[in-house]
Amino acid sequence: MGCPALLLLHLAFLLPGVAIPVPPALRALSSLHLSTSLTSHRSVVRKYSIHYTEQKVDHFGFKTDKTFKQRYLIADQHWKKDGGSILFYTGNEGDIIWFCNNTGFMWDVAEELKAMLVFAEHRYYGKSLPFGANSFKDSRHLNFLTSEQALADFGELIRHLKRTIPGAENQPVIAVGGSYGGMLAAWFRMKYPHMVAGALAASAPIWQFEDIVPCGVFMEIVTTDFRKSGPNCSESIRRSWDAINRLTRTGTGLHWLSEALHLCTPLTNSQDVQHLKDWISETWVNLAMVDYPYESDFLQPLPAWPIKVVCQYLKNPHVSDTQLLQNIFQALNVYYNYSGQARCLNMSETATGSLGTLGWSYQACTEMVMPFCTNGIDDMFEPHSWDLKEFSDDCFKQWGVTPRPSWITTMYGGKNISSHTNIIFSNGDLDPWSGGGVTKNITDTLVAITIPEGAHHLDLRANNAFDPKSLLLARSLEVKYMKQWIRDFYASLRKTR
Amino acid sequence: MGCPALLLLHLAFLLPGVAIPVPPALRALSSLHLSTSLTSHRSVVRKYSIHYTEQKVDHFGFKTDKTFKQRYLIADQHWKKDGGSILFYTGNEGDIIWFCNNTGFMWDVAEELKAMLVFAEHRYYGKSLPFGANSFKDSRHLNFLTSEQALADFGELIRHLKRTIPGAENQPVIAVGGSYGGMLAAWFRMKYPHMVAGALAASAPIWQFEDIVPCGVFMEIVTTDFRKSGPNCSESIRRSWDAINRLTRTGTGLHWLSEALHLCTPLTNSQDVQHLKDWISETWVNLAMVDYPYESDFLQPLPAWPIKVVCQYLKNPHVSDTQLLQNIFQALNVYYNYSGQARCLNMSETATGSLGTLGWSYQACTEMVMPFCTNGIDDMFEPHSWDLKEFSDDCFKQWGVTPRPSWITTMYGGKNISSHTNIIFSNGDLDPWSGGGVTKNITDTLVAITIPEGAHHLDLRANNAFDPKSLLLARSLEVKYMKQWIRDFYASLRKTR
Repeated sequence: MGCPALLLLHLAFLLPGVAIPVPPALRALSSLHLSTSLTSHRSVVRKYSIHYTEQKVDHFGFKTDKTFKQRYLIADQHWKKDGGSILFYTGNEGDIIWFCNNTGFMWDVAEELKAMLVFAEHRYYGKSLPFGANSFKDSRHLNFLTSEQALADFGELIRHLKRTIPGAENQPVIAVGGSYGGMLAAWFRMKYPHMVAGALAASAPIWQFEDIVPCGVFMEIVTTDFRKSGPNCSESIRRSWDAINRLTRTGTGLHWLSEALHLCTPLTNSQDVQHLKDWISETWVNLAMVDYPYESDFLQPLPAWPIKVVCQYLKNPHVSDTQLLQNIFQALNVYYNYSGQARCLNMSETATGSLGTLGWSYQACTEMVMPFCTNGIDDMFEPHSWDLKEFSDDCFKQWGVTPRPSWITTMYGGKNISSHTNIIFSNGDLDPWSGGGVTKNITDTLVAITIPEGAHHLDLRANNAFDPKSLLLARSLEVKYMKQWIRDFYASLRKTR
Repeated sequence: MGCPALLLLHLAFLLPGVAIPVPPALRALSSLHLSTSLTSHRSVVRKYSIHYTEQKVDHFGFKTDKTFKQRYLIADQHWKKDGGSILFYTGNEGDIIWFCNNTGFMWDVAEELKAMLVFAEHRYYGKSLPFGANSFKDSRHLNFLTSEQALADFGELIRHLKRTIPGAENQPVIAVGGSYGGMLAAWFRMKYPHMVAGALAASAPIWQFEDIVPCGVFMEIVTTDFRKSGPNCSESIRRSWDAINRLTRTGTGLHWLSEALHLCTPLTNSQDVQHLKDWISETWVNLAMVDYPYESDFLQPLPAWPIKVVCQYLKNPHVSDTQLLQNIFQALNVYYNYSGQARCLNMSETATGSLGTLGWSYQACTEMVMPFCTNGIDDMFEPHSWDLKEFSDDCFKQWGVTPRPSWITTMYGGKNISSHTNIIFSNGDLDPWSGGGVTKNITDTLVAITIPEGAHHLDLRANNAFDPKSLLLARSLEVKYMKQWIRDFYASLRKTR
């Protein structure tokens, strides 16, 4: 079944056995200052400075004192030394500049919170490579790619900023992150509450581990998105797999399908067919994640409510196999060729190159073991059960490591987190990752915010004229909580003086 | 100045440069069941079973999946499956059986709390050696000796117990520890609050790092203990250093002093003299830690209020150098020869062999960097400033590692811990480690209990007829808090069902 390396978070069960994509190009930045980015419909100039700090490669061992340079960005146009705050983006698995440019929310609230914005790059991604070009060479070099090391980097970076930026020392820091970055934001508040007054964890599936949530919930939500976006849409997709299987039984069929889907590389064998189905599955998953209410360019350039657009081509499941696959092509074409520039569809690409697929594949094979499954009944995919043994064997072949599926729960508590405070868990109901997220208040200060019309961390994106009301409400609540944390911080500071 | 490898915690500043003692003998236990121990004045039979669990050598990296056997003890005579609890001793730097036998408090309260007692051995101590006889070979083998790895061991062990012992799953666990073990108990509650409902951190100097407390406070408390235990006592000791310096200028003097002090190995050079002064200093420090109100045998067999006994020999500081040193011998003899069996005093021994001096020396050279200093004015020792550079160089020579003095604060928060809950910090005013401890309430649930007549974690020792009233009060408060945590745990359990 499917193969995707998913947005921000990659679907681990699909990865092993699939050819590994090259890591995202590490973009060279010509200048240390003044980068510009385009966000949603508006052209916004976002000024930030780029910095590097020395980090220990291993915070948890003393055999080596080797260090590497961790990249981080600072934007302080709206920062006030008097009564201000620091919003700290806990970088996830990709180039930090891309995250910076796709987290318009922080820029939008900076003035109101008198906030300095800091975007910290996660080790082993972007330019923060502990062993340079050798970082992904083998399990020895990858040994320091863990969430614990990343959190320790954040802790050391915050101490560094407080030591070196006059005025920063006695200011509250708030962690902000989305997806895996949202998990890191939540975990950072849990493990380093002395460092951050609170955390906004957007679309953070902290419960997508072990059997905390059913393994099928993710793909069920993807399916629901398609079912609700057009008549017979999910049913058309459900039927497409068998159509592919039937069509590709012969050489002629393989050839016909390669042409019909405008594939850059024609299908030649059954392995290619599996790859095709994985790639198509990943496409539907990605669409579910970025089903935003306005034109956007996150994983790909896309129209508003892209699933609705896709579903216009998938209204009739009861057509011939060839017709169904021609419709599927039109649907894929929405995702892969919205610009109209693509000459063919490339099965080795599914999303932006700014994500570090290689690093995440390793993380999914070690700590981030997220069970996924499908049954073809509650979802629109071919049935595929979660097989830890198979997954583990594939991981060992690929990276020489054995996953530790229960470690994250030991470390971060699973469902048993009620003693922590000041974390907002926001989730969009359209987002498949909400299935592993916290969608109900745990306590007064561990709160859930749900956005019915929201896909993957929509709330972290820049303000947009097409933002649904539920999103505006969610963001205003988030700001309200953050202001409360800031007030509490200063009140407590005054008391101890 | 002084050299001691101190009780439970060793005075780091004194260690480097000093010959390293062999690690404590790893006692072979003939049976897996039924050990007996003598505690204070009473003969108490304490039944426990000895177990081993597989632990990853490296919880924080995946390069290796190597495991080792961690030892732990269980005593469940008073455990009730219905409404019971689990008291979990977070083992520190030594043989867990020795800690088990010196933590009578847990045994004394087991019935009242319907508690199973678990004593978990700290990795690299006792029989829990990740690389067997090679564990201390070099920095590569020692790389996994950190507090974070130890806490992860505890977390994995608790999951293991809850999985494998019927009835344990839905019971509250309370961490208990003294000294470094107390630090671990507190840190365990801070980092793994999902694992333990609360922690009793006895004599845990969690602030003895960086400049959180003045580096001189430790030796000032030692001095105060001696000053208050007899007229001119601390002054006699203060004068003894120069007396030693003067006497040992000549070969005759060296010889005389070796005889006067009944040293097993005579002094031959200035290095020996430094070693002598370090050894004597450590003796005074150890006496301060175990200045218990009754006869005891913790570090050494000792009379009740041993400093008072020592001070009977040190009433007159204004005597000749030789007379002063003869008096010092009488004082040392209280500590080293209370049994009257010793033929000579052995400078390579200062305390029980159950402590893992080697492991602690490494820990002090990596994470547990505790600055200590003396000025000879506020304390009775020769002046010695804290010199990180010198300390660091010595650590590198000795272990091939460089200390990271600020890491513990980054990791565990220093003074900024108010967001945590359910930790009791108990301290005895006589205990030099109380200087780096939490001796005032931080919040309603981060509470300090002080015991004016208490030395080092006196509250963890078994009930004794000579226990001062302040100790009885402290223990009853501790039990009150623990019962509250247990009630809260069950109340919260009922709510979620």
